[in-house]
Amino acid sequence: MNSELYRIEEDSIGKIKIPKEAYYGSQSLRAKDNFNITGQKLYSELIISMAEIKKAAAITNMEIGDLNSKIGNAIVKACDEIILGKFHDQFIVDPIQGGAGTSTNMNTNEVIANIALELIGEEKGNYKIINPNDHVNMGQSTNDVYPSGGKMTVLKLIIKAISKLEDLESALLKKSVEFSDVIKMGRTQLEDAVPITLGQEFNAYSSAIKRDIRRFTLAMNEMQVLNLGGTAIGTGLNADVNYVKNIVPNLSKISGLNLTQAEDLIDNTQNLDSYVMVSGVIKSCAVSLSKISNDLRLMNSGPRTGFGEINLPPKQNGSSIMPGKVNPVIPEVVNQVAFNIVGNDVTITMAAEAGQLELNAFEPILFYKLFDSLNTLINGITTFIDNCIVDIVANRKESRRLVDHSIGMITAINPYVGYDRAAKIAQEALKTGKSIRELILRDELIPESEIDDILDPFKMLKPGVIGKDSR
Amino acid sequence: MNSELYRIEEDSIGKIKIPKEAYYGSQSLRAKDNFNITGQKLYSELIISMAEIKKAAAITNMEIGDLNSKIGNAIVKACDEIILGKFHDQFIVDPIQGGAGTSTNMNTNEVIANIALELIGEEKGNYKIINPNDHVNMGQSTNDVYPSGGKMTVLKLIIKAISKLEDLESALLKKSVEFSDVIKMGRTQLEDAVPITLGQEFNAYSSAIKRDIRRFTLAMNEMQVLNLGGTAIGTGLNADVNYVKNIVPNLSKISGLNLTQAEDLIDNTQNLDSYVMVSGVIKSCAVSLSKISNDLRLMNSGPRTGFGEINLPPKQNGSSIMPGKVNPVIPEVVNQVAFNIVGNDVTITMAAEAGQLELNAFEPILFYKLFDSLNTLINGITTFIDNCIVDIVANRKESRRLVDHSIGMITAINPYVGYDRAAKIAQEALKTGKSIRELILRDELIPESEIDDILDPFKMLKPGVIGKDSR
Amino acid sequence: MNSELYRIEEDSIGKIKIPKEAYYGSQSLRAKDNFNITGQKLYSELIISMAEIKKAAAITNMEIGDLNSKIGNAIVKACDEIILGKFHDQFIVDPIQGGAGTSTNMNTNEVIANIALELIGEEKGNYKIINPNDHVNMGQSTNDVYPSGGKMTVLKLIIKAISKLEDLESALLKKSVEFSDVIKMGRTQLEDAVPITLGQEFNAYSSAIKRDIRRFTLAMNEMQVLNLGGTAIGTGLNADVNYVKNIVPNLSKISGLNLTQAEDLIDNTQNLDSYVMVSGVIKSCAVSLSKISNDLRLMNSGPRTGFGEINLPPKQNGSSIMPGKVNPVIPEVVNQVAFNIVGNDVTITMAAEAGQLELNAFEPILFYKLFDSLNTLINGITTFIDNCIVDIVANRKESRRLVDHSIGMITAINPYVGYDRAAKIAQEALKTGKSIRELILRDELIPESEIDDILDPFKMLKPGVIGKDSR
Amino acid sequence: MNSELYRIEEDSIGKIKIPKEAYYGSQSLRAKDNFNITGQKLYSELIISMAEIKKAAAITNMEIGDLNSKIGNAIVKACDEIILGKFHDQFIVDPIQGGAGTSTNMNTNEVIANIALELIGEEKGNYKIINPNDHVNMGQSTNDVYPSGGKMTVLKLIIKAISKLEDLESALLKKSVEFSDVIKMGRTQLEDAVPITLGQEFNAYSSAIKRDIRRFTLAMNEMQVLNLGGTAIGTGLNADVNYVKNIVPNLSKISGLNLTQAEDLIDNTQNLDSYVMVSGVIKSCAVSLSKISNDLRLMNSGPRTGFGEINLPPKQNGSSIMPGKVNPVIPEVVNQVAFNIVGNDVTITMAAEAGQLELNAFEPILFYKLFDSLNTLINGITTFIDNCIVDIVANRKESRRLVDHSIGMITAINPYVGYDRAAKIAQEALKTGKSIRELILRDELIPESEIDDILDPFKMLKPGVIGKDSR
Repeated sequence: MNSELYRIEEDSIGKIKIPKEAYYGSQSLRAKDNFNITGQKLYSELIISMAEIKKAAAITNMEIGDLNSKIGNAIVKACDEIILGKFHDQFIVDPIQGGAGTSTNMNTNEVIANIALELIGEEKGNYKIINPNDHVNMGQSTNDVYPSGGKMTVLKLIIKAISKLEDLESALLKKSVEFSDVIKMGRTQLEDAVPITLGQEFNAYSSAIKRDIRRFTLAMNEMQVLNLGGTAIGTGLNADVNYVKNIVPNLSKISGLNLTQAEDLIDNTQNLDSYVMVSGVIKSCAVSLSKISNDLRLMNSGPRTGFGEINLPPKQNGSSIMPGKVNPVIPEVVNQVAFNIVGNDVTITMAAEAGQLELNAFEPILFYKLFDSLNTLINGITTFIDNCIVDIVANRKESRRLVDHSIGMITAINPYVGYDRAAKIAQEALKTGKSIRELILRDELIPESEIDDILDPFKMLKPGVIGKDSR
Repeated sequence: MNSELYRIEEDSIGKIKIPKEAYYGSQSLRAKDNFNITGQKLYSELIISMAEIKKAAAITNMEIGDLNSKIGNAIVKACDEIILGKFHDQFIVDPIQGGAGTSTNMNTNEVIANIALELIGEEKGNYKIINPNDHVNMGQSTNDVYPSGGKMTVLKLIIKAISKLEDLESALLKKSVEFSDVIKMGRTQLEDAVPITLGQEFNAYSSAIKRDIRRFTLAMNEMQVLNLGGTAIGTGLNADVNYVKNIVPNLSKISGLNLTQAEDLIDNTQNLDSYVMVSGVIKSCAVSLSKISNDLRLMNSGPRTGFGEINLPPKQNGSSIMPGKVNPVIPEVVNQVAFNIVGNDVTITMAAEAGQLELNAFEPILFYKLFDSLNTLINGITTFIDNCIVDIVANRKESRRLVDHSIGMITAINPYVGYDRAAKIAQEALKTGKSIRELILRDELIPESEIDDILDPFKMLKPGVIGKDSR
Repeated sequence: MNSELYRIEEDSIGKIKIPKEAYYGSQSLRAKDNFNITGQKLYSELIISMAEIKKAAAITNMEIGDLNSKIGNAIVKACDEIILGKFHDQFIVDPIQGGAGTSTNMNTNEVIANIALELIGEEKGNYKIINPNDHVNMGQSTNDVYPSGGKMTVLKLIIKAISKLEDLESALLKKSVEFSDVIKMGRTQLEDAVPITLGQEFNAYSSAIKRDIRRFTLAMNEMQVLNLGGTAIGTGLNADVNYVKNIVPNLSKISGLNLTQAEDLIDNTQNLDSYVMVSGVIKSCAVSLSKISNDLRLMNSGPRTGFGEINLPPKQNGSSIMPGKVNPVIPEVVNQVAFNIVGNDVTITMAAEAGQLELNAFEPILFYKLFDSLNTLINGITTFIDNCIVDIVANRKESRRLVDHSIGMITAINPYVGYDRAAKIAQEALKTGKSIRELILRDELIPESEIDDILDPFKMLKPGVIGKDSR
Repeated sequence: MNSELYRIEEDSIGKIKIPKEAYYGSQSLRAKDNFNITGQKLYSELIISMAEIKKAAAITNMEIGDLNSKIGNAIVKACDEIILGKFHDQFIVDPIQGGAGTSTNMNTNEVIANIALELIGEEKGNYKIINPNDHVNMGQSTNDVYPSGGKMTVLKLIIKAISKLEDLESALLKKSVEFSDVIKMGRTQLEDAVPITLGQEFNAYSSAIKRDIRRFTLAMNEMQVLNLGGTAIGTGLNADVNYVKNIVPNLSKISGLNLTQAEDLIDNTQNLDSYVMVSGVIKSCAVSLSKISNDLRLMNSGPRTGFGEINLPPKQNGSSIMPGKVNPVIPEVVNQVAFNIVGNDVTITMAAEAGQLELNAFEPILFYKLFDSLNTLINGITTFIDNCIVDIVANRKESRRLVDHSIGMITAINPYVGYDRAAKIAQEALKTGKSIRELILRDELIPESEIDDILDPFKMLKPGVIGKDSR
């Protein structure tokens, strides 16, 4: 071993060689070796949230006189570097890890301690001066820091998601206006039903998205409640009373997030049901997005042997063998984002359910999946808007042709002739190819002077039996 | 065929024999034959909700002059019978059915029509007088009636669930007070951590349940919004403008539920994301209940070779072979209720996702599972409270013995000697069997005058470094 | 209390009143009160399987001289009654129960003991003569009896499922032959691809079902291995060596099933992974059935504004408001069966994962869901065949018209002109409405003498570049 | 734009700038822009499998005379580079993508074409010489290449998984031998049951893993069947008859895998149930691993206030605040791997179910999740063996102490005194703290000369009533 390349660190497990230039320390490295599971890195926003907590803790500990300002300020500066996006490569632990996030917390503590040591002119690893546990982690435990970092990250992602959903709602509403006069057949159970406009359909999509926005906004309440100050199991052992009072307000200022402290820190340390709730909100949204995608793919089906009511913008060659083929690739990827989210929800649920007594050891996978759900949701919506929704074109003529061709408007005849008679006309029309209009006139069921009004699809778009509510 | 035993009905499919005494008709019977899937009956509360809707519709249609009062009043009376729990055996369709609930709606329409016919002295099946479609279903479509009936049923079940959860919260809080002085070891990751009281633990459980109550209350908002008036696809075709205005207020009065009409009836007819959301709320609750059950089973483990901190009340012989064995059967059944709910949530999600265009054809299974989730939740909580929580007994002595025996209170030493030194003491204590106290005094790390105060487990139950925050 | 109406039984919990005419006893009644969860009854085939085990045990115990023949024969006769379907109403415990199935086992033991007591002229409840535990349960534990009963039930259901799947495969193959000359457009990603026959599609469906049959057959191996003889935890404590040897062969004879004893009884008592595996097989099948159902609904979509390639048989009125509407109700219910199975699989997985140490306490819900999955699968397939598949009609003309109208056959031109050129022709055809044929001839890309052969859709149904592989 | 930095490519969508040094082309770049979902790269082994297919195709096309040897050999060489791990950075498309894998296939085609062009001295992008579609993709479609590449990748991962599972089985068996004389209490439902050895428990774990190995071996059959030769929809359009015959045998040789061609290429192109099946096998394995992990965490619980029967090897500091704490981090990460796999299974199921008509567009997410499941399984097992299983230490004394202390061995008394009497003794022992032995002797139920033999826990480890089966 070349001592110029390595420093030696020691912990409860024993001694270990750390590359000299490394800012991480023994516990990070052991964790890396123990948990080589996904090959992925920690989510960047989580690293930043952890640094924000460490900064808030150092400031609070200085304020209450538990941490001297030389060390405290160095820690604060180190945190600022990480918040700016630096040193993220020093976070070497796998996002899926045993130990309830201790490895992520200690990786953070070690990197901050070593940056801070350098900032005050000391060598990395000289933990007697600045100690990852005693100084950086002062007043804290993984069990309050890690869940808090996770919640802050989720909050930031929800804020992004809401913004994207608002863009989507706008894009859909804009299309709804554009398509407000495009008459087409409504279909229930894929069978011809009664007329609707393409605009009404896009308006319905925007209504669904509006509901998602409202739910995400409510879900923020679940994520704003932190257990900081609870330390190991929520009882707050070893945390100064004043630290407990001030840590969350300080963190709110630093992070710009609206954070509060849990009323029951013990509960908040051990129970992960809030994440299940948030994942449920994401899943509800995913379901709506997938349903919209399915509809777009159906309406776009063709170009010649499908529904052919809309054209999705061509974004890439559809096939390596079939020339000229254009596929609904963007809705297809949105469907897959939805499937991803539904599966993640099951993992999140199982992780939350598996908590035992004072702690849930399975937060790492829960966070990993929750960040992934939100991240793929945000990315999925982005491409959905930009590469699909805004450039959808209506096939007005074909849609109208199908309406005129259909026998679904028989429903409008219902109030005039009764369900059973109407059913028989529909059956005859279908068998013979004759039009509804023709058969009604033949049987003199409705005067010719009224029939066109009754069968006008544009008059079927809202409540009120035609020719009746004008009475 | 004996014409005394059967009447003949006819519909679009053809003629069919109906038992003379039956109040259901052709469409119910066809559906029964088509969908022999679960062998179960429709959920009773759904039948009642459907009847409430039919009653509200008849009243509304009479009010606006679309339905004559003889027929209308007979329909209202027929509905009242069903609301009182009569004729439920006439609902013969399987809860899992194709057709988006049309069979459930038509079974309702037919039973009401035939009861009403009898009430006015007509023979069952004489649909020219009172028609299941034209009169009972007037102004309606399966597509607005069935989802509305489903939502009302969910609402009623949520109200029950909230009441049960309030009982559970109270029971847990009561135990929390009873156990407020029972000191015991807290455990993280099943490993000895730091002291806590059994009361604090039960208080944490009650906090989790409190959160569930809040969520269920919010979830009611999702279920109060109905699409009645939308008819087939939400455009309201064939519904009188005044019917559309008045149907929901009338239904609110009849049902005693606080119902509103959806702003966007088209959206509300085709999108089932609100149910996904509600199922997510149930699932969050299930996760907390299962976690509490797991904890109780752990703390109850033994009686001699487990944690042995509490005794669950013995409710039945535990084993067919092991005499005297008493098992934690109630928490075990609560766990299973939770697993049931998580699986149901996946089915509900898939059903909601599979909707296409103007309608989701998969509401029947969605309702079936959602009712089942709520029902088993309510039943599970009931037995949890009555047969388990209220009679839990603390093993005070054993719990205290374990605390005294443990080395977890080393954490309280941390602020005095630093993490690294404390870790070494802990390791030595574990290896040698010596006590923490002994080793600290040996190394003169803390004066003897302070050590007992610092190691007093009751002083470790709240924030504050011991001996410090009293300054 | 009227002593003429009740008898008193006593167990570890205390005394309890049992209705005099009841064949169940104290433990059944306590369980009924503890577990009022689903309101359902035990699955009938499980009751029969339990009785078959009890019969085999009694016979084995008599053979080895541990049970006197008077008691033994009475037990055997009592079991035979239950196997014939009698006394099933005496099984009063909820299928979802705590206690790892002890309640089901004890309900069985008690009913058998009391029937047997009556058979030998004794009063019900006189357990000193015939004891539910000592005699009926001799050599057994819930922990080997209940899982064995569950596996036998699953086996019987798998055998039924295989038979139904074979019927389905036949029905699909028959349709495949009937439709072998029905040319239609193949679609990938809902977009026009290249021609195929409807027969080829139905053949593909039958191939998928064939795979399911093979998997179910393999899955039987997982279910044939029983842990009888293992008693409480698989070590076989209290079971006579000769009982352990003979119980499974005896049970094979009685049940007619091909059963073997697990090599590792301890493993087989505590691990439920085999059920997860079987549920996975059911789920694979459900996925294929749902996909086929989706396809049928798509091809059936219309009648005028959809794909309109096939007509599913009309089975019931499609709508309460839209006259003449016929919906694809059977495929829709098959979809729902699939969603049910997927959700059940998650519950089954969670139940299996939650096992601890020597036993899994969550078998009751696992069995409940597994029986439900198989049962709904069998019922779903039955209606799928009888009410849908066999009566599907092809719309030959419309299918052919769509092929001729499409530009998908451009792919066949590929080998002659290259992908890039072909893509441009396709685009021009789509924009201008001109035919592929016309554009190729205009540009003299292929001689007129060959073009019709190359563009003949029937020539595109198998490998080989047209006009080339005949060389 | 600097023409020295970019080349221009053109496709159906239009012109696009490609960095001059890039080996990917227009379609890769468009896909990258369309699908920025996960930020991940394609799985390396998938890239290699794709290259193996392209190589096999080029060789086959040369053999049958459809591809000239200059181009063909260049393609083969280009594939070899990729197979060796080069150029993988040129695969720029996101693993989750719309288009059913067309982007992955075209990325492969483009990279190979451009490497090949350079190899024959041509400029990248000169597709008139070597065309990604016409030459590299000759005889193929994304729809047969991509699924085949996916299956090959799964196969390779299954082979790795089996090897790891064999290592795990060995490690468990070795421990089973080491622990064969460690007597301990067996527990059912976390309650004291009857004695067992730690060796028997580890043997049971190995038995479960053995079953997984058998299942994975069977699952290989599902993955060895490829649809190569089917081209766009399985009809084989545009594929030379001899290419169809030879492509799979050639690919078997190149890949070293035992591959066969599907009997029904149409079925095999559209149905993804085989992946659901494989995912089910992985899930069954995950359930067993999670159960074993749960057991290890339970038995390791303590060190002082838990079960304390075994010590897992300390792998890292357990806590940032609690000194000396060692946590069961490896089993915890294995639990999380299991939760990951269960969630992935739901996503895979939904993706498979969503296939429509001739193709399933959702293979990309299915593959992404299936590779992830297998990969995390392999990595999880690796750390499980190396960092946990092999170094587990038994706490022999404590385990024995608990056995002696327990009252669970009352079960062995059962055959001598009957269940009811035994139950009463057990209850008295529990209440009074007296030993079973003492009470039995007091009541003279068993002669003192036999009692020690009957109560010897080592005699309770296998079938046979003690003192009876030796007769």
